[in-house]
Amino acid sequence: MAANTISLSISSNVAASKNLSSFQSPAFIAPPPTISFPAKSKPGELSLSSTTLSKSRVRAGASQLMNEPLNDQRSFSSPTVVEVDLGDRSYPIYIGAGLLDHSELLQRHVHGKRVLVVTNDRVAPLYLDKTIDALTRGNPNVTVESVILPDGEKYKDMDTLMKVFDKAIESRLDRRCTFVALGGGVIGDMCGYAAASYLRGVNFIQIPTTVMAQVDSSVGGKTGINHRLGKNLIGAFYQPQCVLVDTDTLNTLPDREMASGLAEVIKYGLIRDAEFFEWQEKNIEALLARDPAALAFAIKRSCENKADVVSQDEKESGLRATLNLGHTFGHAIETGFGYGEWLHGEAVAAGTVMAVDMSYRLGWIDESIVKRVNKILERAKLPTTPPESMTVSMFKSIMAVDKKVADGLLRLILLKGPLGNCVFTGDYDREALDATLRAFSKS
Amino acid sequence: MAANTISLSISSNVAASKNLSSFQSPAFIAPPPTISFPAKSKPGELSLSSTTLSKSRVRAGASQLMNEPLNDQRSFSSPTVVEVDLGDRSYPIYIGAGLLDHSELLQRHVHGKRVLVVTNDRVAPLYLDKTIDALTRGNPNVTVESVILPDGEKYKDMDTLMKVFDKAIESRLDRRCTFVALGGGVIGDMCGYAAASYLRGVNFIQIPTTVMAQVDSSVGGKTGINHRLGKNLIGAFYQPQCVLVDTDTLNTLPDREMASGLAEVIKYGLIRDAEFFEWQEKNIEALLARDPAALAFAIKRSCENKADVVSQDEKESGLRATLNLGHTFGHAIETGFGYGEWLHGEAVAAGTVMAVDMSYRLGWIDESIVKRVNKILERAKLPTTPPESMTVSMFKSIMAVDKKVADGLLRLILLKGPLGNCVFTGDYDREALDATLRAFSKS
Repeated sequence: MAANTISLSISSNVAASKNLSSFQSPAFIAPPPTISFPAKSKPGELSLSSTTLSKSRVRAGASQLMNEPLNDQRSFSSPTVVEVDLGDRSYPIYIGAGLLDHSELLQRHVHGKRVLVVTNDRVAPLYLDKTIDALTRGNPNVTVESVILPDGEKYKDMDTLMKVFDKAIESRLDRRCTFVALGGGVIGDMCGYAAASYLRGVNFIQIPTTVMAQVDSSVGGKTGINHRLGKNLIGAFYQPQCVLVDTDTLNTLPDREMASGLAEVIKYGLIRDAEFFEWQEKNIEALLARDPAALAFAIKRSCENKADVVSQDEKESGLRATLNLGHTFGHAIETGFGYGEWLHGEAVAAGTVMAVDMSYRLGWIDESIVKRVNKILERAKLPTTPPESMTVSMFKSIMAVDKKVADGLLRLILLKGPLGNCVFTGDYDREALDATLRAFSKS
Repeated sequence: MAANTISLSISSNVAASKNLSSFQSPAFIAPPPTISFPAKSKPGELSLSSTTLSKSRVRAGASQLMNEPLNDQRSFSSPTVVEVDLGDRSYPIYIGAGLLDHSELLQRHVHGKRVLVVTNDRVAPLYLDKTIDALTRGNPNVTVESVILPDGEKYKDMDTLMKVFDKAIESRLDRRCTFVALGGGVIGDMCGYAAASYLRGVNFIQIPTTVMAQVDSSVGGKTGINHRLGKNLIGAFYQPQCVLVDTDTLNTLPDREMASGLAEVIKYGLIRDAEFFEWQEKNIEALLARDPAALAFAIKRSCENKADVVSQDEKESGLRATLNLGHTFGHAIETGFGYGEWLHGEAVAAGTVMAVDMSYRLGWIDESIVKRVNKILERAKLPTTPPESMTVSMFKSIMAVDKKVADGLLRLILLKGPLGNCVFTGDYDREALDATLRAFSKS
């Protein structure tokens, strides 16, 4: 069997924030260890050495974190800036409280005089007026249109996407316009794909309003829609002009959405940042309680991890696939159980448990990691098993159309070695996959 | 008024084919003149100097042209190769008779083991089996799926595009598959956009079977579909792995399609290659009569012109827009009169006459050019006026959503100066546009 394996050896090269002493643990402060893995490469394996991967392309800018809401004078501190380094497609991620009150930040990334805000019927009543104000305050030359889509993963389809094109065309928006995604991951993915396709590509800006979008989906340029047979099968790699994370928007986020986003935060720890995982083990309740400093740190550190990966592998030729830990199982749950029944992070959480179970069955990780993953997901109030209605054959048929299938071989992200290490590989014992599917679903 | 003008000064830097002595005229052989234009730049104009533009990035490969059909032993001469130089997205255009019989040429550009041929119900009975044979002969590892779309511009829409995604997903094609466009411009544009979007991008190959596609639409990576309010408003810039032009496929092309393609051939002469235009004035009847050597030369020279432009301006920031001479008026005709009533080249021909009329009204060209353009289009049996049902207001409302509108200003490609020179500009007297619209359509 052809082995399509990329073994990853990753150092935790993200600098700890200077301003977060309340969260500092000794392990957190210590210089991050560089763990080379695997010790033995197999023929056909592409080994990414620690030397390659430890060259961080993440440049943190002003590192001040803002824990206080803005006052009426709209004074505000400098945002944290994480740079996504992609040559002429590089862009900043701004992170901070009250950033939507600071119109200058947004306006510097608007090109042309016309803006289309794409949002949904849950976010629009909360933040659309504020966003339009931020786009137009002191800038009378800019006119803003908006299109409000129905909320939910089940509307992430071509019919709904066409509403964005209809609005843009009816508004006669031209190539110099800017699309703004205001909402969670579904809105960001759809608005981004619309921006990539409208007139063959216009500028766009991400304003993520969920943890899921702020730590993951708004960063890195993956855009797209679902097909009835699978998630995100139609789309584009298309980078925004900037990502503006106003952490104040999390104040209105439902608890279930909050927990869903933490599934992706936990993922970064597992695949490449053991220190971050250990920090989460100490602070998961603070995150659920929306402690502003804890959230700000988790978002920043997640974005730094994501930016580092995307900078090295924009089009997912290997390394980037590791960001999909738990997603192959998770997408099968989302597709099989019906889009929108479970939130994306909920499906990823159950999928992560399955991937970790399979890694353990293969003898690639210690049992202690299995226990720690289950424990932190339970504390985050996330599911650790798929819905009861999922069957082995449903998993198999849906996973067969996963984007990570190559020449018929399903490649998976699995943990291997000490905490914080993973592989992306099609070279695994099929029995282990079958055993995991049987253990977690009906035959 | 803001002036968005790019003045073009272009030398005819495309080397004449060595093997076409039968078509050589003294003007054709002479070293091409470099004409600097305009002499006076206006503020805000971006002047592309002749120095910039005369640096040809076109590399013609084997220049042998094949005028003889292949014999049963499938021996064949080397194809003409025109290289599109786009860095890591560079690709060859192969031009020759019988290239579909030479499977090696096609197979070297197929990645992975799975191929999806996208074609239509007119081309499939003629060339689908031959194409599948070329893809699989001596290559049992490759399996080929096909999807046959209804023929015609009116099917260049999202509903029809979804049939391609459906087929690809149902066939479980993965990221290593290759899409092959077999047909005219509509098929090439749709297949290319599907390839750009499927799993966020898979390989694709163009096998154009019409003159229109062979001289223009298959080269340069513009892909997309129509919206009911305008042509090609949804799409992507996405380059193929190669373009394979088998001139034998023109043997089955209807006369009206043949003439339609010549509208684009004539365009290259008018905007940047006066020698080529003069050659066409001598050989237009030979092209209509499908003289193999005349066709082969016209295709090669057209591809060289297109490749040269695309290499310098892939994403149409300026120069590339000049390839749209006559297209803004033409798209309005296609949209207003109903997709598919007129062929694209027929609409472009009438649109070219309108653009030339407007250029003359502005005092930018001599009357002799107006007459020569009308004359050659009439000889090519192409329309020189829009359909009678088109009104001034129809033109205006449809042109307002053209992709070349920037910040509300409609920019047009107009001829200016001696034959073979044009400008792309929004800085023109609105009265001239109105006068042209009134002269060619009802108010």
